[in-house]
Parts: sequence; structure tokens; C-alpha cells
Amino acid sequence: MESIHCNGFKAAGVASGLKKKGGKDLGLIFSETPANAAGAFTRNLVKAAPVILDMERIASGVCQALIVNSGNANCCTGEKGFRDAETMAALAAEQVGVSPDLVLVASTGVIGQPLAVEKIAAAAPALADALRPDGFSDLAEAIMTTDTFPKTASAGGELGGKEFTIIGLAKGAGMIRPDMATMLCFVCTDAAAAPEVLKEVLAQAADRTFNRITVDGDTSTNDTVILLANGASGAQVNDGPGKRTFQNALDRVMDDLARMIVKDGEGATKCVEIRVTGAISDADARKAADAVANSNLVKTALFGQDANWGRIIAAVGRAGIPMDPRTVDIYFDTVMMVQHGEGLGDAAETAVSDVLKKPEFTITVSLNMGHGEAAVLTCDFSLDYVRINADYRS
Amino acid sequence: MESIHCNGFKAAGVASGLKKKGGKDLGLIFSETPANAAGAFTRNLVKAAPVILDMERIASGVCQALIVNSGNANCCTGEKGFRDAETMAALAAEQVGVSPDLVLVASTGVIGQPLAVEKIAAAAPALADALRPDGFSDLAEAIMTTDTFPKTASAGGELGGKEFTIIGLAKGAGMIRPDMATMLCFVCTDAAAAPEVLKEVLAQAADRTFNRITVDGDTSTNDTVILLANGASGAQVNDGPGKRTFQNALDRVMDDLARMIVKDGEGATKCVEIRVTGAISDADARKAADAVANSNLVKTALFGQDANWGRIIAAVGRAGIPMDPRTVDIYFDTVMMVQHGEGLGDAAETAVSDVLKKPEFTITVSLNMGHGEAAVLTCDFSLDYVRINADYRS
Repeated sequence: MESIHCNGFKAAGVASGLKKKGGKDLGLIFSETPANAAGAFTRNLVKAAPVILDMERIASGVCQALIVNSGNANCCTGEKGFRDAETMAALAAEQVGVSPDLVLVASTGVIGQPLAVEKIAAAAPALADALRPDGFSDLAEAIMTTDTFPKTASAGGELGGKEFTIIGLAKGAGMIRPDMATMLCFVCTDAAAAPEVLKEVLAQAADRTFNRITVDGDTSTNDTVILLANGASGAQVNDGPGKRTFQNALDRVMDDLARMIVKDGEGATKCVEIRVTGAISDADARKAADAVANSNLVKTALFGQDANWGRIIAAVGRAGIPMDPRTVDIYFDTVMMVQHGEGLGDAAETAVSDVLKKPEFTITVSLNMGHGEAAVLTCDFSLDYVRINADYRS
Repeated sequence: MESIHCNGFKAAGVASGLKKKGGKDLGLIFSETPANAAGAFTRNLVKAAPVILDMERIASGVCQALIVNSGNANCCTGEKGFRDAETMAALAAEQVGVSPDLVLVASTGVIGQPLAVEKIAAAAPALADALRPDGFSDLAEAIMTTDTFPKTASAGGELGGKEFTIIGLAKGAGMIRPDMATMLCFVCTDAAAAPEVLKEVLAQAADRTFNRITVDGDTSTNDTVILLANGASGAQVNDGPGKRTFQNALDRVMDDLARMIVKDGEGATKCVEIRVTGAISDADARKAADAVANSNLVKTALFGQDANWGRIIAAVGRAGIPMDPRTVDIYFDTVMMVQHGEGLGDAAETAVSDVLKKPEFTITVSLNMGHGEAAVLTCDFSLDYVRINADYRS
């Protein structure tokens, strides 16, 4: 993995013993000066304690450190859970010498088990000692649960003659679904931007990236996306063309991370873009794309490399939008497989079977009714998904 | 399998060569006199040709024969598909000597492949020859696709001093989801009832039974439930207590079949009732029960016999209904596992692990907010589900 860094930020990842299998499970981000901050959080009504804490703290628009653990979600853990989240923040604050109010907290892992916060307390000094400008790859490792590889991305640009950098890291793998910020993702930039600008660009980027991916149609209690901007580069994000430049770079970082999350979907062997065109509206197209992207029958057929387009058209037919099967065309990449709702036979099937062998491709469903469009990224549904999830806690 | 029969009805099931693996794949039901009829059909906008044909024909309220094939859904098959469905009806009509208008048609199997109707034509005489009062078990076999056992049920009662019988048979296994008549199901009774009465009792029974089961959250293009009443017993279903007697017997038959379908869900090893109580409304309870029953994370945990209640409460939290995790209790059968949104620890976990070993049990989620209740039957999600569906067409 390439090493990433961003002016004025340090990060660390260490092992505290929270993960049963061992390995890095505790991470820290520190900005040398207070950074402006924005966040997006799970829409699940069951929210983990750190999510509730962050939603309160981020209202100030300022943050200087973030502490995160894997191995335990600290969710459905009652009053102790809230105290534990506050304790985590206080431990980090003490180590880096800032006010606890400036520290955010994130957790990921099993729901409903008390957090062994004493392990975090014991590891806190080593965690702070490990802070380094190039510590983000350790941090990316520390937040992994069933992820098979750490996920980092970066992009940059120029604003008013000053170069800025954006770096991001994420963990995903399960409980991924559109409709919200969908996993843990931390983005740091050395550009300067007001909290309300950060909030706006983050919401836009999330809508274009994380909210358009799905692994299993479930929604986590801990999803958190945090964007920190410390201004260390001197590049200033203002309204006008500069904001567009920054937005593009942010979109690129988050799109890279979103694609990594789908590719690393639990048990996934393929990353497939489901594109719906010709719907009455974009919203209708999105509903249809979601129905296809979340259909277990479609996803198992993708795993089996089976051009079972009947399952695709059937998923669109139950999506709750206007459609007429007689006007539906379906393509696998550029190969037309279905025209006017009917299969094109063996030649098309042979051509499509080559597409299905690829690790990444696009399925396009043209409804031919209007101009609505949408695209969603999904993965296939494999034997390993079941293996991973049947014994996640054991 | 016990043999079932119903006065004035005959049935048959034979092999026509439509199923790649061989075996019975063509069935026929014949009533010696025209029967009153009602039907319920898929709400998927992609409807198979036989479904469209039946929806037209059943408007008359009369039917004397029904021909059904497995191995091919005759869906997304264009004009030829509609002609093939009509041809199937005409072939049956010719054999049993009734008008084609009195014949209904059903198909199940792969979508989007032309039906080899010539095989049905060739087998039609043998099919008619095989008609027998106790031929329903052959018919139940002939409609199986990935089903592992044939599904039949029966019940009876007395109306005005005359005994009546209801028999039913069904196929299920995949593409099963609440929200509609959910598979092929044929119910015959020797009671007499007007078509509008049949329609009413069938809708009620479907709502209480087939619309409350889920296997994989997908919805077939071919779902069909047909109820035929030929009056051969002389028992008359009228408004008043008689209708209740008949409704109860019909509910019993369809509930038996619905449970068999869940138990035989593709790859299923468990049949689990998801019960939600204390919601603001019954509709809210239903949404929560559906979210839990269709969650892949919950279903894989059930397969793994893992008391992962965090996934259950997380599914309720994203169901789109008002809820507060701090008032949620969760029971596995009678064992309380979660109180006020927190786990009850190792003793409860041990007791629950015994429940999880059972082939059938109930998970109750009490929201403690109101008086709304609902229950949905689901199955677990196993390695075999993926195996079956990854190569269904091959």
C-alpha cells in the first residue's frame, strides 16, 4: 500500500487486545491545529454510543483528534457504552493535550457487548507515541474488521496558487447499503474551509459515492464519515470555482474508497455497476437499480457467472416503479442480451458469458420510458459471504 | 406422503421432458363439472404469459381444468409465449373435452427461454390418461422445481349437515416474499360457493398465510394461487357462520402449505417466526418484522446458530418505523436475551443457544411503544442457498 500523508496531520494504529484474533485494533488521528470538521452518520435509529457522541460534538464544527477502535461496536451497551465513548475521547485528549470536546470517537465490530475500555486505556500511551505523518496506513489496518485489505485514497489540487491534499481511509465489508454514510471513513485535508462548506461538500460527495454502493442491503448502527480540514496548506476553499475544484478531489477520494469497499464486500468476487436508464425519473431509476443491486437471486447468479437476466427484469418488475417489460433492453457491458423484454438467444449468451468472467463490469437496464438515470455499485453473493456471516461472533 | 382427494376432482402428473434432469414436469387438474374459481396473482409488473392469460380468464369466475408445467416459466417470451400458454390450455381442453375458455394455465421454472410446447403436446394424451381422483400427489411432484419435497395439505368441515373437503398443493423454494400470492398453489374444494365469496375468502387466507412468509425477499413473475369449488359435496358456503367455517378450513390448508414452503426454502435448515409486538401500529410491526425476516445478516446468523441479536435490533432500527432502542426487549422462544436494548449476558446467551439448535422457533421483538403486532415466517440463509442459486440455469 502506498503511504499517504497530509500536512499538519498525524495518525497511528496499534494493537490493544480488543480483537480476538489480535492485530491492530486502535487508531488515532491528530491535527496539529484545531481543524474544521463535518460528519455524516448512520440513519439507523439504533445508533452506537460513539455516533451519538460525535453527532453532538461535531455541531461545534471543530475537531482536533479522533480515536477509533475495531473489534467492538460499542452499540446497545447502555449507559456504560456512553461513558466508555466519553472515556475513549478523554484518554485521547489527555495523550495529545487537547480538550476532550475536540475529540471524536468511532467504533466498529460486534454489537451488544460491553467495551473493554481498560484495554484502550492501557494502550493509549503507545498509541500516542506511534503518531506519525505517515501513520495512516497503520490506522487503515486498525479499523479493519472482515475487510481483507486496508483502504486508503488520496487526491490533490490547487487553489489560489496553493496546493492542497485530501487523504481518506475507510473500512467496509458488511452491513453496507445505500441510503446513508455507510461505514467508517475518515478524510483529512490541509485545505481551509468553513464548517458549513465542509458539510455541504461532504454531503454531495457521500451522495455520489457511499450512498450508491451496496453489499448486503443491511445498514450499520455505526456508520460514520468524518471530514477534517486544518488549513495547513494555506489553500482556501471558497464559493465559486475553488469549491468545485475541492469537490472534485473529494469526490475522487470517496469514490475510490467506495469502490474498494464494494470490491472487498464480504465474500465478493465481482464488482458490478447496475445502471438503469430511460426511467420516468431519476428517483425511479434509483429504485430499480437498488432492487437489482440488492436482489439475492441476481447476486448469487453473478457469483455463478450465470447470465440469468430473468432475475434482473423480475427485480425491476417488483421495484415499485412504472415499467413495461415489453420495452426493456438489458446490456452486459456493451453486449445486448435482452431486447423489448425478450432474450436474444445463444449468440448473445455466449458473448455475455465472457463479460461475466470479468471482475468488473456494468449491467445496463434501459426502460425506454423517459430520461431518468441512476447507477449503483454492487458485488456478487458468494459462499464465503455466508461462511463469514454465519459465525462472525465466534 | 398421504394421498389426498376431493369429490369430483381428478389430477395427474407426468414427465414430458421439459425438466433437464427428467422427472414429472406436467400436471393437470380436472373437475367433472365446471367449478367456480378465484385467483390471486403476482404483483410483479413482469408477469409470465400464463399469469396474464389466467387473470383474463378467471374474470368469468368459472374453470373446469388447469394445466401446469415446471422447468420453464414461460415469462419474457414475447408473442410466442402468449400463444404457447393458449396452446397449453387448448391441448388440455381437447383432452378433457371442455371449452378452452374454462382452462387455466400455470408455469414455473427459468425465465426468458422459449417453451418447448411440442413436448407438452406430445405428452398431453398420457397426461389425460393419468387423471385419477388420487392423482394430486403426482401433480404436487410435477410442479416442483428446487423444492425438495412435494407439498399437499387438506382440511374439512360441515356446512348445513353436509361434509366438505378442501385440498391444496403448492410449490415454493425460491423467489418467495411477502406482499403477494407467492408461488404456485392450487386449492380444490367440493363445497359450493359463489365466485365473489371465493375471491373474498381466498384474499383473506392469502393475507394470513402466503403473504407472511419470506425466503429470499425476491418476488416471482409467475406467482399464482387458484381456488376451485365444484360443489360436489352439496355443502354450501353462504354468508354467516358457514363462511367462517369454510374460511377456517381454507386458512388451515394454506397455512400448512405456507409453512412447508418456508421449511423447504432453498437451502433452509430452520423455520423461524419473527414476531414484533408493541409497535405503534400493526403496519409498523409488519415493516419491522419484514426487515428482520429479510435481513441477510440475521438469516446467516440463524444458519450459524449465532445469537447475534445486534443484527436483529439493527434491522428494526432501519425499518423506517418509530422505535427507541432503549425500550426494546428480544426473546428467543421464551428466553429473554435483550432487555431495554441491552444484552442480558452469558446465562441468557447459553439458554438461547439451545433454542437456536431447534429447527423451529420464534424470535419476539417487543418495542414497548404501542399495541401493534405482526408475525412473519422466515428461514435461515445457508451455504446451500448460494450453491442452488449460483448455478440454477446450468
